[in-house]
Amino acid sequence: MPPAAGQFAPAPASPPIGLIDHWCLTRLSRALWGAPVRVELWNGMIATLGDAPPVATVFIKDRPTLMRLLVRPALAFGEAYVADRLRVDGDLVEMLAGVNHALAGRPYQHPWTGASGASASDARENVHVHYDLGNDFYALWLDGSMTYTCAYFERDDATLEEAQRVKLDYVCRKLRLRPGETVIEAGCGWGALARHMARHYGVTVRAFNISQAQLAYARERTAREGLADRVTFVDADYRAIDGECDAFVSVGMLEHVGHDHYPLLGTVMNRVLHPDHGRGLVHFIGRNAPMEFNPWIARHIFPGAYAPALSEVMPDVFEAHNFSVLDVENLRRHYATTLRHWLDRFESHVTEIRGRFDDAFVRTWRLYLASAQACFTSGDLQLFQIVFDRPASDRMPPTRQGLYGAGGDGRV
Amino acid sequence: MPPAAGQFAPAPASPPIGLIDHWCLTRLSRALWGAPVRVELWNGMIATLGDAPPVATVFIKDRPTLMRLLVRPALAFGEAYVADRLRVDGDLVEMLAGVNHALAGRPYQHPWTGASGASASDARENVHVHYDLGNDFYALWLDGSMTYTCAYFERDDATLEEAQRVKLDYVCRKLRLRPGETVIEAGCGWGALARHMARHYGVTVRAFNISQAQLAYARERTAREGLADRVTFVDADYRAIDGECDAFVSVGMLEHVGHDHYPLLGTVMNRVLHPDHGRGLVHFIGRNAPMEFNPWIARHIFPGAYAPALSEVMPDVFEAHNFSVLDVENLRRHYATTLRHWLDRFESHVTEIRGRFDDAFVRTWRLYLASAQACFTSGDLQLFQIVFDRPASDRMPPTRQGLYGAGGDGRV
Repeated sequence: MPPAAGQFAPAPASPPIGLIDHWCLTRLSRALWGAPVRVELWNGMIATLGDAPPVATVFIKDRPTLMRLLVRPALAFGEAYVADRLRVDGDLVEMLAGVNHALAGRPYQHPWTGASGASASDARENVHVHYDLGNDFYALWLDGSMTYTCAYFERDDATLEEAQRVKLDYVCRKLRLRPGETVIEAGCGWGALARHMARHYGVTVRAFNISQAQLAYARERTAREGLADRVTFVDADYRAIDGECDAFVSVGMLEHVGHDHYPLLGTVMNRVLHPDHGRGLVHFIGRNAPMEFNPWIARHIFPGAYAPALSEVMPDVFEAHNFSVLDVENLRRHYATTLRHWLDRFESHVTEIRGRFDDAFVRTWRLYLASAQACFTSGDLQLFQIVFDRPASDRMPPTRQGLYGAGGDGRV
Repeated sequence: MPPAAGQFAPAPASPPIGLIDHWCLTRLSRALWGAPVRVELWNGMIATLGDAPPVATVFIKDRPTLMRLLVRPALAFGEAYVADRLRVDGDLVEMLAGVNHALAGRPYQHPWTGASGASASDARENVHVHYDLGNDFYALWLDGSMTYTCAYFERDDATLEEAQRVKLDYVCRKLRLRPGETVIEAGCGWGALARHMARHYGVTVRAFNISQAQLAYARERTAREGLADRVTFVDADYRAIDGECDAFVSVGMLEHVGHDHYPLLGTVMNRVLHPDHGRGLVHFIGRNAPMEFNPWIARHIFPGAYAPALSEVMPDVFEAHNFSVLDVENLRRHYATTLRHWLDRFESHVTEIRGRFDDAFVRTWRLYLASAQACFTSGDLQLFQIVFDRPASDRMPPTRQGLYGAGGDGRV
């Protein structure tokens, strides 16, 4: 239980203003009670938030920032951190995970506030803001395949390169791709999965994306690697996907679709998948329960994004079309590890990144990567891979044993 | 497309009555168009329902039966079959699967009609009707462990005994049981899983059931096998489950809980599971989309039962308590195989069963087992195993590899 007030050092400020600051700090302490954090104000006031040894000190540099933190904590924290009106000394990831843990079990905020699915033109703008920052920037801290989604660590000490390669293969194996089949990929990033499928599984891929920078990179690299005859990149939104395929795959796009548009996504999948044996895999960041997306991330990192609970994707994406869900796997901890690698690489290139952008950009990206790592560590975010099939298809093996044995089932 | 009328042989009946019969048969033919079935009436009228070669002839013995089939087809079919007012010559399972296939994609009936969850006293009565038919009866066609839920066939040609043993072990492995842990089992049947967990994984089990016949059998056998110190059977409904445990498991009970009572089940799971590392497995018959339970099964086999879609179980059973869903596996085809074994064994003891009960009983159980096999074959029913955990627990391994390698992970 929090005490009536936090455990404060003496306040040197003059009484009236000092009382306001004291009151604000008390409220903040209560809100975050139990987090392993020490809070220090510009005026020297200090609070610890419970018995846990602090892993970091949050230094709040002025009164308006303190007051904003009480009103819209998540947004204010991110914006103040980026504006350097608040500093974190210590382990940022551990601190954020500790705050999540302290907040766990408290009432959820109402879901979907301000994240209801982007129109096709908004989607282009949203994607542009994030994914068109420059391929060189992403190349600094992603693995060599340019895979910007959760990796799969068969061993904890696998390298990021290895874990991403294994993940790409895992997706192909879950889909049981066979030579000569056709695949549609919705939201293909820089094309790593499309190339992997074509190269190692002998399939023909049509990969859709609306990021111009990613498309340019994907086309150039795919041609250079001699795969252009088997991989076509299409500059179109998922809504415009046409044709027919044996397998549909989407890795890391559903988060951008938005809850209002799940029926559209389901309709597209149903339209393009072979009516008898068409199957698919959808991989996305989700939640244990419906909950608002972090408002700072939603405003500054991924406009229009939403991480759904399983109950939110099931009805419109799968059930409306009688798709049979065969396999749901939660790779939460793999994403925490993936993000740890990304953040480490980001930090090792921070001088270069700061020179190319600015300090605020570095703080934005550091906080984004650190808070994502913290959320996957604390269990506030999940990573779901869902494999689905037509209801009466018997093409997929009845057990998962082939996924974990030796040798790449179906691999050419 | 169905023609204006089915393909009929000449009708020998007198014109007016013959016209009514003709009209009814036409309607029936349209409703089932595409099914590999030949329909023959008492008066010699015959219809085939499309181009598929018939796998069976449905012989309708009188006009009231024909008319009832048009009004409430699923209920009327079952009741007429049991009353011997309708006969199926040919392969019953293939015929039922073919009908399901022909009906696939047609509009669903409204869900939950007449299946809204039994009160505790109704639940006792519902369970009594089915599970207290006599242990000797079930022993005739279940495997030696008396496991009355979907088996797991690592190989297609595994025996039922082997597939049930592997299933029990698979459940333990998915739960990553460790020696000394405590397990609560809700709905334990004749105690096969409870004994398997205690014997091979060194855990202590409290197993709940409200079938008196099953409880008596379970207690006697468990004592005889020297496991009574580690397995306690409790005569109580899932609502009354108390205590605390490391793992919660329920195999084949959720179907009896009823949609209205899912919040109660979730609350019980949350109450008994260790707050930090408590995890569980729920195994149940489900659907690809919300749909009414077969009304004949709901009335005559499993009163109060309901097979939910994933969207129906997620909110109240898991999300309301912030449980983290780690793994969903659909074992649909394993249940089709399990039911084939059960039906084969049932038929091989049919004389004995008829002697003990009567013809109507034999037809009831034959149709129940055959229609269940048909539904799992055609994709009208699913079998979901859901593994869940507390949100921030890292006790469960991050990959499934240990489930499929050699050696029983955790087995003692």
